[in-house]
Amino acid sequence: MKALIFDLDGTLVDSVYAHTVAWQRALAEAGIDVPACQIHYRVGLSGRLLVKGITRLHQRRPLSEGDIGHLEKRHAALFSKLFSHCAPLPGAVSLLQFLHKSKIAHGIATTSKRPEIRPALKALGIDGKTLVVDGTSVERAKPDADLFIECQRRLGFPASECLIVGDAIWDMHAAQRAGIFAVALLSGGFSEQDLYNAGARRVYADAAELHQSLDELAVLP
Amino acid sequence: MKALIFDLDGTLVDSVYAHTVAWQRALAEAGIDVPACQIHYRVGLSGRLLVKGITRLHQRRPLSEGDIGHLEKRHAALFSKLFSHCAPLPGAVSLLQFLHKSKIAHGIATTSKRPEIRPALKALGIDGKTLVVDGTSVERAKPDADLFIECQRRLGFPASECLIVGDAIWDMHAAQRAGIFAVALLSGGFSEQDLYNAGARRVYADAAELHQSLDELAVLP
Repeated sequence: MKALIFDLDGTLVDSVYAHTVAWQRALAEAGIDVPACQIHYRVGLSGRLLVKGITRLHQRRPLSEGDIGHLEKRHAALFSKLFSHCAPLPGAVSLLQFLHKSKIAHGIATTSKRPEIRPALKALGIDGKTLVVDGTSVERAKPDADLFIECQRRLGFPASECLIVGDAIWDMHAAQRAGIFAVALLSGGFSEQDLYNAGARRVYADAAELHQSLDELAVLP
Repeated sequence: MKALIFDLDGTLVDSVYAHTVAWQRALAEAGIDVPACQIHYRVGLSGRLLVKGITRLHQRRPLSEGDIGHLEKRHAALFSKLFSHCAPLPGAVSLLQFLHKSKIAHGIATTSKRPEIRPALKALGIDGKTLVVDGTSVERAKPDADLFIECQRRLGFPASECLIVGDAIWDMHAAQRAGIFAVALLSGGFSEQDLYNAGARRVYADAAELHQSLDELAVLP
């Protein structure tokens, strides 16, 4: 393993619950009342797929592209308010510092988009030199493989030498499609069984436990 | 099965995520930064046990009783703001109406306390005639059995004729201790595997699916 590719929300920053509440409010404003657990489950999907899945589940007429765009904007605005503190998850900052110091290649591949993710990157201490592939970089976000493949390509290592770290079913699906070995963290609130079922080869509590386990994953300076 | 005993948060009303965010903020105000998923996991425990578990996990000095009381007050204030819409979960209102019309005995047993739960009860259409045992009614809340036993006693049926419906590990543990058969709902965001492991004899998506499944649980008017 020569290069690590990280998801952002729920993997490095504690933003999944803020995304959940922001989507729930944005959808409620549009007259679509959805239980929080049904949204939580879908965080990490592209906004389009999340909204389409929810409207189908609730047997609503499909929304227009314009309506989906408006919902995505409202979600972004509500999320920025709710996630003003941008808390990194346990072990995330020190793991990134360790990789940086050890000159182990790594990047971030996230469905979320700039400028929404800037405060999170700042809270993690990520400067302009770290590779960040965001939702604006590809046409199709997770669970498609495009984000991970783009990050892998720009890191310059073959898929067989990369390791993906995510927290959601959609990270594991996208990793599988990209042909890249993946492990999962429980810090986004997904269930361990769901993550193993979705293709995680190992599940850790959080970035801190992953950091302690890099040897068993054959990640070495 | 002659009588149903329901948990409230995550079982009948969509309040678990609001509780999670409210606890996270209250703890952060006290200088204790905790990932949301660690709090979500503990919602449904008594406030005292939740705070004690979190402080132990984060290797903090145990808080004084006064500090815990202050945190509980801040949590209640923040929760009231976040849960202003009091959304019932899918199927909850019609299930309660069905039980009422069918004269099937039922009650609610919740760790949460009045007046915090009043808006939720109102949103569910619960009047003064429905039995509600709240956290002020017993000395020890969940995962101890006291709330469920008190509710069972006041409903007037033996434990063997009661059915508990909850959404959290702590409901299943308390039901086991009370010697009452229990099923679980996924609507609070707990994992299916955790709920089965904790003692749920069947897991349904939400109150709507439970309503459709009353026959298989031998609940009959």
